[in-house]
Amino acid sequence: MQDILKDLFIKNDKKIVLLVLDGVGGLPREKGGKTELETAKTPNIDVLACEGECGLHLPIGFGITPGSAPGHLALFGYQPTDYPIGRGVVAALGIGFPIQAGDVAARVNFATRDEEGRITDRRAGRIPTEKCAELCQLLSSVSIPGVELFIQPVKDYRAVVIFRGEGLSDKVEDTDPQATGVKPRDPQASSTKGEKTARIAAQFISQALELLKDGQPANALLMRGFAELPHIPSMRERFGLDSVALAVYPDYKGVSRLVGMDIVEDLEDLDAQAAALRENWDRYTFFFVHHKYTDSKGEDGDFEAKVGEIEKVDHFVPRILELKPDVLLITGDHSTPAVMRAHSAHPVPFILNAANLRPDATTEFGERSCAKGTWGVIPGAKLMPLALAAAEKLAKFGA
Amino acid sequence: MQDILKDLFIKNDKKIVLLVLDGVGGLPREKGGKTELETAKTPNIDVLACEGECGLHLPIGFGITPGSAPGHLALFGYQPTDYPIGRGVVAALGIGFPIQAGDVAARVNFATRDEEGRITDRRAGRIPTEKCAELCQLLSSVSIPGVELFIQPVKDYRAVVIFRGEGLSDKVEDTDPQATGVKPRDPQASSTKGEKTARIAAQFISQALELLKDGQPANALLMRGFAELPHIPSMRERFGLDSVALAVYPDYKGVSRLVGMDIVEDLEDLDAQAAALRENWDRYTFFFVHHKYTDSKGEDGDFEAKVGEIEKVDHFVPRILELKPDVLLITGDHSTPAVMRAHSAHPVPFILNAANLRPDATTEFGERSCAKGTWGVIPGAKLMPLALAAAEKLAKFGA
Repeated sequence: MQDILKDLFIKNDKKIVLLVLDGVGGLPREKGGKTELETAKTPNIDVLACEGECGLHLPIGFGITPGSAPGHLALFGYQPTDYPIGRGVVAALGIGFPIQAGDVAARVNFATRDEEGRITDRRAGRIPTEKCAELCQLLSSVSIPGVELFIQPVKDYRAVVIFRGEGLSDKVEDTDPQATGVKPRDPQASSTKGEKTARIAAQFISQALELLKDGQPANALLMRGFAELPHIPSMRERFGLDSVALAVYPDYKGVSRLVGMDIVEDLEDLDAQAAALRENWDRYTFFFVHHKYTDSKGEDGDFEAKVGEIEKVDHFVPRILELKPDVLLITGDHSTPAVMRAHSAHPVPFILNAANLRPDATTEFGERSCAKGTWGVIPGAKLMPLALAAAEKLAKFGA
Repeated sequence: MQDILKDLFIKNDKKIVLLVLDGVGGLPREKGGKTELETAKTPNIDVLACEGECGLHLPIGFGITPGSAPGHLALFGYQPTDYPIGRGVVAALGIGFPIQAGDVAARVNFATRDEEGRITDRRAGRIPTEKCAELCQLLSSVSIPGVELFIQPVKDYRAVVIFRGEGLSDKVEDTDPQATGVKPRDPQASSTKGEKTARIAAQFISQALELLKDGQPANALLMRGFAELPHIPSMRERFGLDSVALAVYPDYKGVSRLVGMDIVEDLEDLDAQAAALRENWDRYTFFFVHHKYTDSKGEDGDFEAKVGEIEKVDHFVPRILELKPDVLLITGDHSTPAVMRAHSAHPVPFILNAANLRPDATTEFGERSCAKGTWGVIPGAKLMPLALAAAEKLAKFGA
């Protein structure tokens, strides 16, 4: 299916807004109760549900709990299983590092070794993030001719290193032996393409060990998940869209960058996002507006606070509507039920609002009300073709 | 899915009728209003909805607006994206030309050239269809040994040429340079298989230019979209069906021919179609009955007239029922909302009526009533397996 879209896109000025309430899907807190979304008062969004077509989507597939990056890829119209993202790139995107085509990223774990160089603790006693940041600062003095090097803390003992230069490749195997009592492996190329990068990684490790040598417990490092940016055709190539991301958090800017979106920087909150939407309205045809805190409150297990975040987004919706978008798609990238304190595999409600639609029986934004909508349960990556069709951006297939 | 059907089919005498209301899906004309189909009084079809299983289908895929040929291929059980149909064949089918396996069809545009042979207008001043028909008549005197040649007007400056003979191939590139101020390209084979056809096309062009030389503004021609009939296994091969098309319009006979259906010619209206259905009842196991005017009125933007056409089909339905078909499938090949005056990507309602089904909540033929049916939204090409199963024409898969 997806391949034919590329041949059908029509450039026009109609504007699509994708409003994502991160992790919006939820669960009732008690038997017979309502979910967070069903509890929230969302009068503005409910009007859009009345006028629009509704359903549930599965970002990745049946039973699959989406990570943030693949959840968003699906919403951008890319079946996530067709575009696997390596661990190093996930880490780089996760901290908002602006990784570029040709870069190679790898996860780094700080570790402890004994005098013979054997690993005694693969996590360096789980040093805190602040310590990790200090060590990254220390390692930023590593210098390798012809290569630009970035090393950044992720969380606890985890960091990420990015190599930038000519002729790099992710065809390098992990140095992490996945066991204690043995030495780390040397970086080995898994194919000839990876040989240069393996040599560079070896130089990096050698200099790093020198810098870390008195740094008990973090006197060693292990590398894993060498990865390049996957080759993802941009939203302009695939859909003819000029797209922009209005997101507060770095992770979501990262995944937007992956599909070639422009990014508006330094947005602090929904107010700033509304202002940026207005300022950029004439420049783009696709606007991704992201609200993080529905997910954060779900992960905190704070049902009431998640309800509050949903209501904040509802208050924000009129600021989108006053710009008169041609198509407004409201949904989430996955579910984050407060009772589970984590992402979950539950399908995610959506509302598609545009002029030429068939309003269905759904009259409010909720998991079970949207389940009664026209679309039933559909793959997340199919929302984009529906939005494109509603914006009259797809030509007829065949005569 | 589709590949396994071929190994499962069971020959029996049960009869399936596929009744297509072309472009039946619609949209409300005002906020809160009903669609054409929801407005139409369809008491006969509503009874079938009460007794049957209902849903919506997507002929090609999410967001994709179907052309007539691929829309019908889907209804005949062929996923249209698996059977692309080239431009020349689309043109030939579109004018009802009985194209055969081995024929090569190409689109011809009449054009204007200057004294040096450079194209000055790729559309010959958009000559009217009548003029185009005259020119085709003139070119019918072109004679190439060993090849039968047909040239027919399509619309305005567009025509189609069909070459029939031994060893032809569509591996020939366009002669249209897609620009003015340059000469047309010579027909070039894109692989050795196309060399004979390229030579024939060159002879055709050479003779045609001689005939057109005083014919300003149409003193040249450009060829594009050389195409052979796609290799589509027949409905007999795939489903074991003896099938016949009862259609008024040539396009629908054309697409029926593509899947190996027999064609009843010279049907003028639903009365004639009803009579032909009765006459042919004992000879076939699959009957495709097509009504064009629901689509035509939609394309005219005439909501009321489309409602009227739907009601005409409802009056016709008892003439099918009196023959006691084992399975009756009523649907459309796409939507043509009067408010859009064009084909659209909206899903299409269907009713499957047969003995051993589970009647669902749907009690009338409509977009939103069928959306509440058992099947939700399914791919159009899956309707045929449902009909075959209801006619007990598919064996068990596995032990």
